[in-house]
Amino acid sequence: MTTREMTDGRFVRQANRFTDKITADGSSGYPAESGRYRLIVSYACPWAHRTMIVRSLLGLKEVINLAVVDPIRDEKGWRFPDRDPVTGASFVSELYLASDPEYQGRYTVPCVWDTRTRRLVTNDFPFITTMMETEFTDYLPTGAPDLYPVELRPEIDGLNELIYATVNNGVYRAGFATSQGAYDEAVEALFATFDRLEERLAGRRYLFGDAVTESDVRLYPTLARFDAVYNGHFKCNVRRLTDYPNLWGYARDLFSIPAFGDTTDFDQIKRHYYITQRNVNPSGVVPKGPLIDWSEPQDRAALTSG
Amino acid sequence: MTTREMTDGRFVRQANRFTDKITADGSSGYPAESGRYRLIVSYACPWAHRTMIVRSLLGLKEVINLAVVDPIRDEKGWRFPDRDPVTGASFVSELYLASDPEYQGRYTVPCVWDTRTRRLVTNDFPFITTMMETEFTDYLPTGAPDLYPVELRPEIDGLNELIYATVNNGVYRAGFATSQGAYDEAVEALFATFDRLEERLAGRRYLFGDAVTESDVRLYPTLARFDAVYNGHFKCNVRRLTDYPNLWGYARDLFSIPAFGDTTDFDQIKRHYYITQRNVNPSGVVPKGPLIDWSEPQDRAALTSG
Repeated sequence: MTTREMTDGRFVRQANRFTDKITADGSSGYPAESGRYRLIVSYACPWAHRTMIVRSLLGLKEVINLAVVDPIRDEKGWRFPDRDPVTGASFVSELYLASDPEYQGRYTVPCVWDTRTRRLVTNDFPFITTMMETEFTDYLPTGAPDLYPVELRPEIDGLNELIYATVNNGVYRAGFATSQGAYDEAVEALFATFDRLEERLAGRRYLFGDAVTESDVRLYPTLARFDAVYNGHFKCNVRRLTDYPNLWGYARDLFSIPAFGDTTDFDQIKRHYYITQRNVNPSGVVPKGPLIDWSEPQDRAALTSG
Repeated sequence: MTTREMTDGRFVRQANRFTDKITADGSSGYPAESGRYRLIVSYACPWAHRTMIVRSLLGLKEVINLAVVDPIRDEKGWRFPDRDPVTGASFVSELYLASDPEYQGRYTVPCVWDTRTRRLVTNDFPFITTMMETEFTDYLPTGAPDLYPVELRPEIDGLNELIYATVNNGVYRAGFATSQGAYDEAVEALFATFDRLEERLAGRRYLFGDAVTESDVRLYPTLARFDAVYNGHFKCNVRRLTDYPNLWGYARDLFSIPAFGDTTDFDQIKRHYYITQRNVNPSGVVPKGPLIDWSEPQDRAALTSG
């Protein structure tokens, strides 16, 4: 999650500082290699969540190793539960400052640490998943899905932009707004996109048909957090996810896939937002609800065309 | 609404300062008279809401006059939209201080002003409604309902105590809790009562059968505010009112009665809580949702036994 700045009550997400790329051919200076890179994530953070989903869907668990930080973040930023044995860090901040002693932004996850050069390669979350999909092809097990098919990329990128602006980041724009106008603008755009997606998912199992793509990976982390956190904490309460039959069935369909379900930790999610974001929730009290059954059966498989 | 104090993260409602009674026989010094008393209310406040409902149900609108304050309360407390022509006050505080120059609590509504002696008779909200029901009988129009039948009073009082402790005040105990333990305790008791009421209302149209009583009047203001405010703002989110078929049908049934529906102003309710209670909602942003249709048909009349 990245630093926030406010303009006219509007939340503006900071630019990502580390934007190097890992490439299959090594031309970037960071060649794709097995065991070399450490992905730093939090189960709470939606931007990190998507990287865990892709790593798992692609079968890259043995190739890219993972470090998970505590869900509760204080003024020192994200913290490792114990000193991280690979990087040696106790706080994510140490990785940022080791890579750039002048760094002044917030210390965000997800980020990728290079164990060889001992510096951060990237915290540029929009590209971490597509980097795994396009640059680690030599390391994919047989039968790994193609989450970012060449012929669909323009369409996937277009939908991802809409999802990012109005949904993934839209909930933050609503929740961190400090003016009514900024909030209204964000929440209207968010539910307009939900209405469009609800319609789109009436006739297709996933956003691009029969197979999971990068767009599903990006939409899901926000849906998983929606009723649990964004509905109350971020005031995204025009409707609940569970009020949308198609979106809710779709979310449960994805949840039933281990790469999605096993990386979804509602307890860490709720504790992170409610305890950490005292600007929104001064008491730090974590709500007991809502009672939602993500295992409720759904019949999305019937939408498969082939 | 009354002042709050905290103990171990628990919200404790202040005792009411003015506890004189208006009596039918005048023995209290405040005889029931038409046109003499002014009831001060806010559409936002649930404790005031019940007094407006009873005044309207009993047909006492010409007997007890009404002054409505602005929904938004700042550090000066409740404010009249214009200088109140009857009391001459611009703020409710003036009525309190005119009655007791030493008063140091918060200035709460509902309260009853005596235009004759020019002082507050009572801000003791639990008794304002029953006072109208029992002491103004000479002024009731023919056919006025008996909201507090003598033979049911012990049962009504018992149920009212449960409703007050766990529901009416329970939502405040949840929402104003500053410790997890205090919140957990409040929210568990609240939903335990909801579960009991849901069952109770499966076989009866109102809480005591075919006729509206004081208990319905007391439960309703909290139900009217539940999904609109308490669910998100006060974290009472285990379930929504709309998730309880009987309670939700019952609430709509009451809403369809003008004394209930016409005194329910969702816009003022939402603005009051979200804008005024910055301790809970620092931004003061008012959520757009939830979209709920209080006019959705219900078939509660079928439960009438006679």
